[in-house]
Amino acid sequence: MELSRQRDQALRERAQAVIPGGMYGHESTYLMPEGTPQFFSRGKGARLWDADGNEYVDYMCAYGPNLLGYGFEPVEAAAAAQQARGDTLTGPSEVMVQLAEDFVAQISHADWAMFCKNGTDATSMAMVIARAHTGRKTILCAKGAYHGAAPWCTPILAGTLPEDRAFVVYYDYNDAQSLVDAFEAHQDDVAAIFATPHRHEVFSDQIDPDPEYAASVRALCDKSGALLVVDEVRAGFRIARDCSWAKIGVAPDLSTWGKCFANGYPISAVLGGEKVRSAAKAVYVTGSFWFSATPMAAAVETLKQIRETDYLERINAAGTRLREGLQQQAAHNGFTLRQTGPVSMPQVLFEEDPDFRVGYGWVRECLKRGVYFSPYHNMFLSAAHSEADLAKTLAATGDAFVELRAKLPSLEIHQPLLALRAA
Amino acid sequence: MELSRQRDQALRERAQAVIPGGMYGHESTYLMPEGTPQFFSRGKGARLWDADGNEYVDYMCAYGPNLLGYGFEPVEAAAAAQQARGDTLTGPSEVMVQLAEDFVAQISHADWAMFCKNGTDATSMAMVIARAHTGRKTILCAKGAYHGAAPWCTPILAGTLPEDRAFVVYYDYNDAQSLVDAFEAHQDDVAAIFATPHRHEVFSDQIDPDPEYAASVRALCDKSGALLVVDEVRAGFRIARDCSWAKIGVAPDLSTWGKCFANGYPISAVLGGEKVRSAAKAVYVTGSFWFSATPMAAAVETLKQIRETDYLERINAAGTRLREGLQQQAAHNGFTLRQTGPVSMPQVLFEEDPDFRVGYGWVRECLKRGVYFSPYHNMFLSAAHSEADLAKTLAATGDAFVELRAKLPSLEIHQPLLALRAA
Repeated sequence: MELSRQRDQALRERAQAVIPGGMYGHESTYLMPEGTPQFFSRGKGARLWDADGNEYVDYMCAYGPNLLGYGFEPVEAAAAAQQARGDTLTGPSEVMVQLAEDFVAQISHADWAMFCKNGTDATSMAMVIARAHTGRKTILCAKGAYHGAAPWCTPILAGTLPEDRAFVVYYDYNDAQSLVDAFEAHQDDVAAIFATPHRHEVFSDQIDPDPEYAASVRALCDKSGALLVVDEVRAGFRIARDCSWAKIGVAPDLSTWGKCFANGYPISAVLGGEKVRSAAKAVYVTGSFWFSATPMAAAVETLKQIRETDYLERINAAGTRLREGLQQQAAHNGFTLRQTGPVSMPQVLFEEDPDFRVGYGWVRECLKRGVYFSPYHNMFLSAAHSEADLAKTLAATGDAFVELRAKLPSLEIHQPLLALRAA
Repeated sequence: MELSRQRDQALRERAQAVIPGGMYGHESTYLMPEGTPQFFSRGKGARLWDADGNEYVDYMCAYGPNLLGYGFEPVEAAAAAQQARGDTLTGPSEVMVQLAEDFVAQISHADWAMFCKNGTDATSMAMVIARAHTGRKTILCAKGAYHGAAPWCTPILAGTLPEDRAFVVYYDYNDAQSLVDAFEAHQDDVAAIFATPHRHEVFSDQIDPDPEYAASVRALCDKSGALLVVDEVRAGFRIARDCSWAKIGVAPDLSTWGKCFANGYPISAVLGGEKVRSAAKAVYVTGSFWFSATPMAAAVETLKQIRETDYLERINAAGTRLREGLQQQAAHNGFTLRQTGPVSMPQVLFEEDPDFRVGYGWVRECLKRGVYFSPYHNMFLSAAHSEADLAKTLAATGDAFVELRAKLPSLEIHQPLLALRAA
């Protein structure tokens, strides 16, 4: 049984003519298994419908933004009410002040907030603020960590210059010695250390932060005056209601937020402590839509849901059920999974699958049965993933494992992946 | 008569606590005359209401985005219909293809489009694409031209490094010899020449492009293989329905768009010709909300209005009426104005006003009478600026000139401006 793909195929052909490569960025299906739809027509709760009308339980959540469910009514109502009054005006609306107050109250290390549009805006602002604060240049980042797609951080170098990242120095995540070595090599010039809440790289197991490593990052910053930046753009509010590292007792100087805190409305943020306020005031950063009120009204309501509901417990319960169900099914069919990271942001890889053909094969079988997974990128659960969604998912994945077993000898490597690895 | 400011003042005090400096970026009123409201509560058509309920005819149009009127119904309806289906999903919606097709059909030099969120995203992408296409580093920009707020282009240097703009070289706008000199100094390394459609710098007269200068930019690019980038973020669709330089017969290789093409919904774009397609495909650029469907639906409808209505003629008629009315009133009261740039984007400065105290004084009197102008930044008209709006405006400005004449001896320089000029 293959799903209908006619409309998606026609859209892809039209897109090829007017969009370079047919699509770009993280929502291109270039690296996804054959049969993955490129275009969607609708979303509601945890469900997505592609351009051909095929329905999926979605485990990507728009790569993060869908925290409470697509079209979640309280957020939609707050946004619509603000939109009727005004969105992008000649000045900000009152809701901007309320959002800054609510966000700062929510995040224990924060005394102030600045809002922007992209995750990359937030991480780039944190870099600039750290340089303004310290008068130093060097930024330490974990090797392979994704902090956005500006020239200083984009993972693909075409069109960028060595000079764009001349002062970006890499260390190994979770390796305190590697961090100390990188730090000491640039002793007097470290402006900031960037850290993701946990390691969440594509095609890799996720790794939780070693509390000793996290403490050593903080200690290095305290000793030197460098700023600790925790980049919450991807993980924020799926690990804690506070900054993720609050759970292991480490407070950053700056944190960067995006994706989910307005449940899909476009807004990102930098939050900081008192000592960094004057540097944040000194830098010049802005954007045409950074003061738009509708996403801020959506964010105020989303933060209220974060504060007042059991959204996180529901996400974790759904994630736990998924992880345990997959584990059982895999074992029953003779597969060993590596399920890593928080259950709210699962990465599901197969043991003994060096070229990912087994994982791709399985995701393809799931997709045909109405479940949208990624074979290489961490996934996301939302508070809308219900009992019915999980039941449908696990029925599909069970069948997918059986089919995978039958197809195992004939699986082939995903061709674009081969090309990527050769490059 | 002073307007009530209690609520605005209370919001400013709250903002001081949770937003560095109380506000940031281009929508901060730091440089605006005393009495300018920082916060707005509503917008409709060409009118704005501040947090205290004071009403203004608005000539900033959100610094550009308001092209057809705040809350313009056909755009609001298209956006709401898409929002009900889905905005930020796990993949783009069908409307993205339609928008790319419509935009490319509208802009004569363009064969493809890529969408992003900020104007800065678009200009930074153009830079990266030009470097990928040419394998060269140097970017020529006109001195003082605003191309965004990333480290390579932001007008205030705090937190940026000399290395961020090591390969950005400046020439004088409209000065073909200055351009040739800058070009020849970097002969073999010029990746792109950036040009704004006309010169629109703060605190300065606007200057139309000399067609010979524009032709020489094109010729230099043709000879060398460097790319011509016309940055339409601010001026786009207020000068022409095509790229602004189409009017003087010069086609760019890349153009960058933002602000107004979705009438206030957050989206920007890079458009390019066939020869740059493969470089555009090679670079990696993305953002959490770049594939969101609601702003794209708003853009499709806005482009339809641009294509099918007399929006531009109406904007120009309103701008002409404003310019002529102000000219007459100023002369009648013994003032000489310098009104420069397209009538759709007026800059209004006073002769014999080296420290801008006269201009600030006049804008303050206009504000008190319900007309929102800027004394230093080019302004914007929308297609919603009606006969009634113009009549109200000119009644207010007439009175403001009379009052200005009376207050002339006691005007003082705007203090933050003095501080800025000292820095």
